[in-house]
Amino acid sequence: MTAPLNEPRPTGPGRPQPDTQQGMRRRNLARVLHTVSAEGPLSRAAVASRIGLTRAAVSTLVDELVRSGLLEELGPERPGRVGRPGSALAVSGRGPAGIGAEVGVDHLAACAVDLRGTVRARAVRHGTNRGRAPEPVAAELGALISEVVAGARDQGLWPAGLAVAVPGLVARDGRTVVRAPNLDWHDTDLGALLPGAYPLTVDNEANFGALAELWLGRDTPPDFLHVSAEIGIGAAVVVDGRLLRGTRGFAGELGHVPVEPEGPACPCGGRGCLEQYAGEEAVLRAAGLEGGEGRVGLLATRAAAGDARVRGALRDAGRALGVALTGAVNLLDPETVVLGGALSGLAPWLLPSLEAELDRRTAGPACPVSVSSLGPEGPLLGAAHSVVRAVLDDPSAVAEHV
Amino acid sequence: MTAPLNEPRPTGPGRPQPDTQQGMRRRNLARVLHTVSAEGPLSRAAVASRIGLTRAAVSTLVDELVRSGLLEELGPERPGRVGRPGSALAVSGRGPAGIGAEVGVDHLAACAVDLRGTVRARAVRHGTNRGRAPEPVAAELGALISEVVAGARDQGLWPAGLAVAVPGLVARDGRTVVRAPNLDWHDTDLGALLPGAYPLTVDNEANFGALAELWLGRDTPPDFLHVSAEIGIGAAVVVDGRLLRGTRGFAGELGHVPVEPEGPACPCGGRGCLEQYAGEEAVLRAAGLEGGEGRVGLLATRAAAGDARVRGALRDAGRALGVALTGAVNLLDPETVVLGGALSGLAPWLLPSLEAELDRRTAGPACPVSVSSLGPEGPLLGAAHSVVRAVLDDPSAVAEHV
Repeated sequence: MTAPLNEPRPTGPGRPQPDTQQGMRRRNLARVLHTVSAEGPLSRAAVASRIGLTRAAVSTLVDELVRSGLLEELGPERPGRVGRPGSALAVSGRGPAGIGAEVGVDHLAACAVDLRGTVRARAVRHGTNRGRAPEPVAAELGALISEVVAGARDQGLWPAGLAVAVPGLVARDGRTVVRAPNLDWHDTDLGALLPGAYPLTVDNEANFGALAELWLGRDTPPDFLHVSAEIGIGAAVVVDGRLLRGTRGFAGELGHVPVEPEGPACPCGGRGCLEQYAGEEAVLRAAGLEGGEGRVGLLATRAAAGDARVRGALRDAGRALGVALTGAVNLLDPETVVLGGALSGLAPWLLPSLEAELDRRTAGPACPVSVSSLGPEGPLLGAAHSVVRAVLDDPSAVAEHV
Repeated sequence: MTAPLNEPRPTGPGRPQPDTQQGMRRRNLARVLHTVSAEGPLSRAAVASRIGLTRAAVSTLVDELVRSGLLEELGPERPGRVGRPGSALAVSGRGPAGIGAEVGVDHLAACAVDLRGTVRARAVRHGTNRGRAPEPVAAELGALISEVVAGARDQGLWPAGLAVAVPGLVARDGRTVVRAPNLDWHDTDLGALLPGAYPLTVDNEANFGALAELWLGRDTPPDFLHVSAEIGIGAAVVVDGRLLRGTRGFAGELGHVPVEPEGPACPCGGRGCLEQYAGEEAVLRAAGLEGGEGRVGLLATRAAAGDARVRGALRDAGRALGVALTGAVNLLDPETVVLGGALSGLAPWLLPSLEAELDRRTAGPACPVSVSSLGPEGPLLGAAHSVVRAVLDDPSAVAEHV
């Protein structure tokens, strides 16, 4: 099947793809499945009217989707009516499942999500991964994945693919972690260390967090900038409902946007990067707190208790975020900025100075800033849902494997 | 016909488009025309093998394109061979033409480009447009457009559409100039002031400049950041060969990316924006030169003559551009940055400090910076070619009008 992300590689003009009956059938299968997924339960006739195909054409497509276990018939609807009753169709709760996994700096997690978007199995292990070699971390993550897959199989589901979120830059091959500074991993082929039984994609946690926001967030528009933090500060740019990845897959490095051109040196080689003002280390230092696990929680607790030094540190971080986001908003003109990940828990103390900075620097109405309702769950959910979306986008690829 | 730009509006998931025989025919017509445009002259058989359709299917499509004047048959090729000789096909030099026009701060221009990409007619008027009302400017531009259209008609061409480049922000309606500070135009419906005989698109000059670079530049990759300047500094972001427009159509405002958070106030409402360091006014002031027409040329002349103050001013501007571009490169991860418009003529004195700044601030290999070979011609050519591309992308829309 295709890679479980919504990013087809562009086809060059030198070798245009032919548009064939088979390609049309594949796209129409996806249209039917997406329509039932978004609006179901629906009868065949309702699907036909929604996608503008004949009922006969839709019936053929539906039969194929039922055969391959992606749709199920809920039985006749309104049975008292004259004529052959329409059977309501729903996306299957026993077909393929998307397996998501996450390597966090301080935890590992895995989950299984069915085609309806419901989390059906889940496993988490807390404990730091800082400075651990990739092999033992991948082995532990593999065990969590196996646990989740077994749990999904017990419920009649089967894994359609695995997507793994990591706190670092991932090459466009979707498996190599080029740089994960807080794990101290470099050029790690994580794909080779994980179970090979299913199609695999590894991606940056900020990207999966943004996709989760796009697919699961409340009223998230198709154009937005998603800013998240675990230890570093990452961002993801979503344009017309698609993730902007960049040439090497490195787009969204908001943490290294210069905020003060001659500010403190940053390990990246730059000076005055945003992370030097709003990264976790910088904020903890400014707040007079020590490092260690659960530090973001401590910042929130102290800020909520009214600690002036902590609140000052968060206010300054918000200001620096506002400067960097002004640049990003000027370049990208997104409809909204969404704060996700660990930043969502600190939003009450970051937002006022962040928004003030954005307002005073932006001509015309400032870009609205909202807080993700998914919080730290975003990347894991985004990973699992990316596999589910790949099935919805190309159901024929799964059907061929049944 | 469709708007002469390569940006179809996204269709929402709530109303998926049906995939029909007719849609397939339209896309295959475009594939045939694009293939002949990129690689012709080609025989029907060669087109068929390149796009993966049968010769019979291609012949039907070719006949339609010949009938509507988009392709022409050059006559039998290799006439000595056994069997029916294949006739070589070429894109027509007498069919539709793209009409491009430009409102510059110091000039007006129009041109006609045929489907082969050749400029077939051209008209220019020099003289400042600063502070002039939109109506007389549009009337003069309309006269230039009429002159160019008449010249094209004399050569057997007919206008397929008109695209106009302006030095300002244009709404996504493709006709309203929201803000053109150097013309002092605000919320101007330029569409209403121009000839209504053809489909019309108005867009920012930086956008058209970037599209020209994409279509006509030497080895331009599909992911790049195009930086240009007339009086202000604009940029355009091209991702996977498509222009990133932003929610309101305002993406690419590099000139208002903060470079020094507490730097000088900018008319945009911000502080320390890039234009305060690298905009034309700022550079002329730092170079000790007066304002007036042809000022960028004067900077280049003085710098070439070794004027230390001018060179220092351009070095400082390059440094500020380097800081702003570091942020942009971190966010977008483009394959390359291209300096176009007036900046291309100043590149020898801007580039060293710009590249040094980008290098020292970027982790890993720095993003390469190149200079556009199109220079100030880019926006006008990009406008005309955008109409041509729209014909290549949907030939059936034109055919219906023949």
